[in-house]
Amino acid sequence: MRAAVARGGAVVVRDDVPEPEPQLGQVLVQVRACGICGSDLHFLRHAPDMLAAGDEMEGMPDLGDPPIDLGRDVFMGHEFAAEVLEAGPDTVAPAPGTVVTSVPVMLTMSGVRNLAYSNEMPSGYGERMLLSAPLLVEVPNGLDPRHAALTEPTAVGLHAVNRSRIEAGEGALVLGCGPVGLSVVAVLAQRGIEPIVAADFSPARRALASSLGAHEVVDPAAEPAFDAWARAGRGRPLVVYEAIGVPGVIADVLRRAPRLTRLLVVGVCMESDVINPYHGIAKELTIDFSFGYDPMEFASSLRSIAEGELDLTPMITGEVDLDGVPGAFAALGQPDEHCKILVVP
Amino acid sequence: MRAAVARGGAVVVRDDVPEPEPQLGQVLVQVRACGICGSDLHFLRHAPDMLAAGDEMEGMPDLGDPPIDLGRDVFMGHEFAAEVLEAGPDTVAPAPGTVVTSVPVMLTMSGVRNLAYSNEMPSGYGERMLLSAPLLVEVPNGLDPRHAALTEPTAVGLHAVNRSRIEAGEGALVLGCGPVGLSVVAVLAQRGIEPIVAADFSPARRALASSLGAHEVVDPAAEPAFDAWARAGRGRPLVVYEAIGVPGVIADVLRRAPRLTRLLVVGVCMESDVINPYHGIAKELTIDFSFGYDPMEFASSLRSIAEGELDLTPMITGEVDLDGVPGAFAALGQPDEHCKILVVP
Repeated sequence: MRAAVARGGAVVVRDDVPEPEPQLGQVLVQVRACGICGSDLHFLRHAPDMLAAGDEMEGMPDLGDPPIDLGRDVFMGHEFAAEVLEAGPDTVAPAPGTVVTSVPVMLTMSGVRNLAYSNEMPSGYGERMLLSAPLLVEVPNGLDPRHAALTEPTAVGLHAVNRSRIEAGEGALVLGCGPVGLSVVAVLAQRGIEPIVAADFSPARRALASSLGAHEVVDPAAEPAFDAWARAGRGRPLVVYEAIGVPGVIADVLRRAPRLTRLLVVGVCMESDVINPYHGIAKELTIDFSFGYDPMEFASSLRSIAEGELDLTPMITGEVDLDGVPGAFAALGQPDEHCKILVVP
Repeated sequence: MRAAVARGGAVVVRDDVPEPEPQLGQVLVQVRACGICGSDLHFLRHAPDMLAAGDEMEGMPDLGDPPIDLGRDVFMGHEFAAEVLEAGPDTVAPAPGTVVTSVPVMLTMSGVRNLAYSNEMPSGYGERMLLSAPLLVEVPNGLDPRHAALTEPTAVGLHAVNRSRIEAGEGALVLGCGPVGLSVVAVLAQRGIEPIVAADFSPARRALASSLGAHEVVDPAAEPAFDAWARAGRGRPLVVYEAIGVPGVIADVLRRAPRLTRLLVVGVCMESDVINPYHGIAKELTIDFSFGYDPMEFASSLRSIAEGELDLTPMITGEVDLDGVPGAFAALGQPDEHCKILVVP
C-alpha cells in the first residue's frame, strides 16, 4: 500500500509498504484524514537532537521502546480519523464502516508503543494502519472525519489549559498562533476566560485567533505582547501560554512578565536555552511544561468537537492526498499561507 | 554609633554612623542579634549583577525605591531581633525593653522601603536601627533574641514549602543544606513529609540536615542525589527544593528528575543559566520560583520557634560582635566550618 514516510530529513511517498494485518487486539482501519502536526516538521528538522535529548534524559519510565533508527524510514501521522475495515482474530471492535479515532499509541504484549515516529508500524500518512481495539473512540453525531482529525490537536490545547490551572478572574496571553496556540485560544474561550490576548507575527494567524475567541490580537513586530497584555489585562493575574518553541522565548517571558505570572510552556523547543533565574525568583514566577494529554482529555475533546462546543475547523487551510504530503510540509513553513493541512489519502 | 557596612565589595566597620532618630510611626531599637544571610554574601560578590538584572527586568511594581548607589556605603542585616528603646512622636509602640522583630521593611510616606541594602537607613549590623511601629511583632515566651533572629530564615523556608504545595504522600529532595535548605528541611519535617532526602557536599551540613529532620542525607560526590531519592522515595511523587543557587543546578534537575516532578527554586542564582526545555516538556515538570515570605508567614515562623515546634538553633555555629563581622563573612565561605553566624552588637 502507499504511505508518506520520513527519510533522511525529507518526506518521501512509498507505494511498497507491506499491507498491515490485524492481530489479536488490533483493528485494521482505512485512514480518512490525518492532520500534519508541527511536531512532524520539528521531527524532520531536529530528529537527531530529539533523540540525543531523550538519551541524556533520566527519570522517564522505561517502556522498553525500541530506539528509532533514523537510517531507516520513519512512519509519521498521529492526528487521524479512520474507518474500521476488519478486526483481528478474537477481537471485539466496532462494525466495519464505523468512523473512529484513537490516542496514537498501540498496546502490545511488550508495552505501549508510539503509533507515529515508528520504523515498524504505518501511521496516519498512509492508506491503512492498525489501531488497538481497546483504545478506539467512535466518532459521534456523524461528524466529518476531517473534523474528527482535529481531536488530537484540540486535546493538546485542552491539556495545556488544564495543566495551567487557569481560573475565572485570571487572563491569558497566548504567544504563537500556530495550531497549538489556536487550540489553547479556543479552549480558553470555551471556558469563558477573559481577556485572551494572542500574539503572532502573521496577520492570517492573528485573524484565526480572533475567530477562535481571542479578545485582542497583537503583532509583536508592532507592539510587545506584554504591552498589549498590560492594556487589555488591567492588572488581572496572568497565565502566559508559550506556543512558539524557539530559544529565547522563555527568557523573554521571565524578563517581561508581571510578578506571580504562571508560564505554561507548550511549544516544543528542541534546543538549549539561556534563562536568567533571578527574574523568575524576584517575581516568583512559575513555569509549567505541558506535553500531550491523557485519554480522558482526548475523548472529551472529540465530544466537544462533535457537540459544536469547540470548533477549530477555521484552522484547516488545506487538504492534500498522499502525493501532496511533501509539498504540504514545504507549504507549512509559510505561516501566513497555511495553518493546518489535512492529508486525505 | 557603630555599624558594619558594605563598601566596594568588602565589609567595613564604621564608628561614625549618625544616631538614628525615630520619626512619626517609627521606633528606635537596640539590635540584640542579627543573623548573617547568604544573600548578604551574594550581595557583596554580585551587587552589580543584581542591580543590572533588576534594571533589565520588567513587570515589578514600581514602588519608587531610590536606586542603590554602590559607590556609597550600603547597610545590611535583615535577620534581626531587637529591644525597643524609644517610640517616635505620636507613635503607638510596645514599652521600652520589649524584644521585637519585624519584616525588614520600613513604611514611609513615599512607599515601602527595604530596611537592608540601603544607603540611608542603618540595619541589623549596627548598634541601633529604626523600625516601623505597625510592623513590630513582639517576641513571646521570653524567647532568647538570638533564637528570635532565626525568624526570617525560617520564614524563607516556610514560604518555599507553602509555595511548593507539597502534600502528604509526596516526598522531598532538598539540594543544598545551607541555612535556606536547612530551614526547608525543618519545615518539611514539621509537616510530616516523608521521606526528606537532603544533599550537600559538607559532612557538617549533612549532619545538621539529619538533626533537623532529614530521613536520608547524601553526599553528591559519592552518590547522585537523584539516585538516593530513587532508593528512599520508592516511587512517591517528588518535590525538589533547589537551595544552592549556582548555574547548572536547574538544568541538572530537569535532566534527572522523574516525570511530573515539581522543582521549587529558592536558591538565588545571580548568573545566566542554560536549560534544555525539552527535558521539562517531555517529563511535564514544573518550576516554581520562591522569594521571601509574606507577613503572616513571618509571624507564624516566630510563633513556631517560640512554641518549640521549629528549632533551627542547631544551625547557629558562631557568634561575633560588630568588629567580628568582616571575619564572619570570610568564615562563611567555608561551609564545613560555619552555617549561621549571629552578630551580637
